[in-house]
Amino acid sequence: MSTDPISYHRDHRGKIETKAKAPLKNADDLALAYTPGVAKVCERIAEEPREIQALTNRSNTVAIVSDGSAVLGLGNIGPEAALPVMEGKAMIFKAQADIDAVPLCINTQNTEEIIQFCKHIAPSFGGINLEDIAAPKCFDILKHLETELPIPVFHDDQDGTAIVTLAALLNAARLRESKVSELRIVVNGAGAAGIAITRLLRAYGVKDIVLVDSKGIVSSNRTDLNPYKKRIAKDSNPRALSGDITVALKGADVFIGVSKCCILSEHMVRTMADHPIIFAMANPKPEIMPENAHAAGAYIVGTGRSDFPNQINNALVFPGIFRGLLDAHTFPRKCVISEHMVEVKIAAAKAIAGVIEPSVDYILPDVMDPAVVPAIRGAICA
Amino acid sequence: MSTDPISYHRDHRGKIETKAKAPLKNADDLALAYTPGVAKVCERIAEEPREIQALTNRSNTVAIVSDGSAVLGLGNIGPEAALPVMEGKAMIFKAQADIDAVPLCINTQNTEEIIQFCKHIAPSFGGINLEDIAAPKCFDILKHLETELPIPVFHDDQDGTAIVTLAALLNAARLRESKVSELRIVVNGAGAAGIAITRLLRAYGVKDIVLVDSKGIVSSNRTDLNPYKKRIAKDSNPRALSGDITVALKGADVFIGVSKCCILSEHMVRTMADHPIIFAMANPKPEIMPENAHAAGAYIVGTGRSDFPNQINNALVFPGIFRGLLDAHTFPRKCVISEHMVEVKIAAAKAIAGVIEPSVDYILPDVMDPAVVPAIRGAICA
Repeated sequence: MSTDPISYHRDHRGKIETKAKAPLKNADDLALAYTPGVAKVCERIAEEPREIQALTNRSNTVAIVSDGSAVLGLGNIGPEAALPVMEGKAMIFKAQADIDAVPLCINTQNTEEIIQFCKHIAPSFGGINLEDIAAPKCFDILKHLETELPIPVFHDDQDGTAIVTLAALLNAARLRESKVSELRIVVNGAGAAGIAITRLLRAYGVKDIVLVDSKGIVSSNRTDLNPYKKRIAKDSNPRALSGDITVALKGADVFIGVSKCCILSEHMVRTMADHPIIFAMANPKPEIMPENAHAAGAYIVGTGRSDFPNQINNALVFPGIFRGLLDAHTFPRKCVISEHMVEVKIAAAKAIAGVIEPSVDYILPDVMDPAVVPAIRGAICA
Repeated sequence: MSTDPISYHRDHRGKIETKAKAPLKNADDLALAYTPGVAKVCERIAEEPREIQALTNRSNTVAIVSDGSAVLGLGNIGPEAALPVMEGKAMIFKAQADIDAVPLCINTQNTEEIIQFCKHIAPSFGGINLEDIAAPKCFDILKHLETELPIPVFHDDQDGTAIVTLAALLNAARLRESKVSELRIVVNGAGAAGIAITRLLRAYGVKDIVLVDSKGIVSSNRTDLNPYKKRIAKDSNPRALSGDITVALKGADVFIGVSKCCILSEHMVRTMADHPIIFAMANPKPEIMPENAHAAGAYIVGTGRSDFPNQINNALVFPGIFRGLLDAHTFPRKCVISEHMVEVKIAAAKAIAGVIEPSVDYILPDVMDPAVVPAIRGAICA
């Protein structure tokens, strides 16, 4: 029993393996699984391409593609150092949703090459989970692949984080007896997650969101914004604030941190509205430690970690979303998904929130709760 | 129990899956395998890149890369239709050598793009097994990757087929009481396998080999040869024959077919030397059926199939070769491999031949014989 992550990984030499799921015990099995029998199976797929769904494991296989450019809160540590995260995700895919996932940490950080890489692997996979790819290139990559590939593509750092954040907010607002659409919300960090969260909360109907990056409030009068921040600046910050995060926080009901360790002080929390909601989701070290946030008057505190209460982690999202997306693709009669991904995302968030009866230290189900995947799948499959 | 390959594949919806090999039962496990614990593991690899071998499954993972351009004897059926073969190989990798393999059937048949694809995936894999990629581009691809990638790259259709053919020939010649180097050998099919077999047999010391393609004997006076055939023409056909396969076969001791179904007639076998050796390795249907070859006087007959005696299949090679290559890369003190791949290949062929006491219907061990992988690994690791 390892209690330290390095020995846990070293003891097992990594975390995943490839196993046979059909018998291979003797020459008869071999003649079915491999030559000569397999030739018939290849010919069948060549004649009727849809048969790949039934005759191979493709329809249950997801590629986890990362260039290692934005890994957890560690930054651009490269593809090799990103591999343990992707193996961990593959474990969770299997445990929660019985999905077979393959880590593909790749040796390029070029937008065009990442897009081309994903197009190249598409014949072997039922879906692609983009992971830990830095903003703003991740937006371009996702946009291209969503329109150009026939299989579902999901960028977990954007969509997964946005969905689980909305789920957490739904239950937190309910406990605080607030209307979500009336909340004043500050999102700190304008990378993949911050922009996706802001977009989804706006789509849900939140009116007052202020997005903050390392240079301060993202507002239309700034001249240093990339096209994605420029666009979101037009659709947020309704009071046209400018300045640093302290300006944004004054009177805010909710702080959503997808930035980095320790940037939120107790003093800053005290300038917020009464009983604020604090989601300090920087990984592995949150923007403020829960005990400090509570000491400063926070009502509900969530982080990204499994060793504190209220883990707000996309691991609650990606297994169920992909279970639904894969099923919709493989069994179009049994599972029909809205063409509007934003509706799928809101349905998933509501489903996650609805799995439990929340309390201040339990606003979301546990990542390993077996009810989550069926709830998401049921909500997104009409 | 399926007895038909289509139902075998349909019943199991394919043949492989991804499994966890470390525990993931509760929040404590999750905190080690995923966030927050995994961050420490990522940081360790970022600081000390060699640690990826011990802390992830990379060192035991092989990518099976195919563009679907030359699948079995079926030709260019594309990446989707090739997937069942690659899943079958992954099963054999696991069953025979405990190697975790991942099928990557890719959506390009362009040489440069295939090379770039393999370079892109290198951070996630301990080795690359190229598969069912058509000649002559497969030669360029292998040459580039062998010199430019830090991990072992092996093209099974070239090297695997050449090694298992040499192994079969060693035992067949022994039974026929012939000296391998003195045999007159015809290789029919000048694709990836035919050229690699000819090269390896020449390196082993065979003097009289005649290579034949669909236009006839590959000889230096032909003007329609690609650079690879031109080169091999200079190093084979010592009697400077020209004409079709019937010219080549007259008086030959050995026929090695890596071409297509049914091109070898009983009449042609009768023009060969007495008691010829016939390796009719076209898949799934051999160049001549074993009963017909024997009726025409063949002494030993092998095919690529598991449902006839004397299966000459690279499945005898790739698990053991990769076990040795991966171990040499991961544990350089325990396993040192010759820098000259040709020495590694000859050692592997001798090891395979030496696993059994051969007889005319048993010139090679069974593909599932558990003694093969340790024998190859032991022979190639000094």
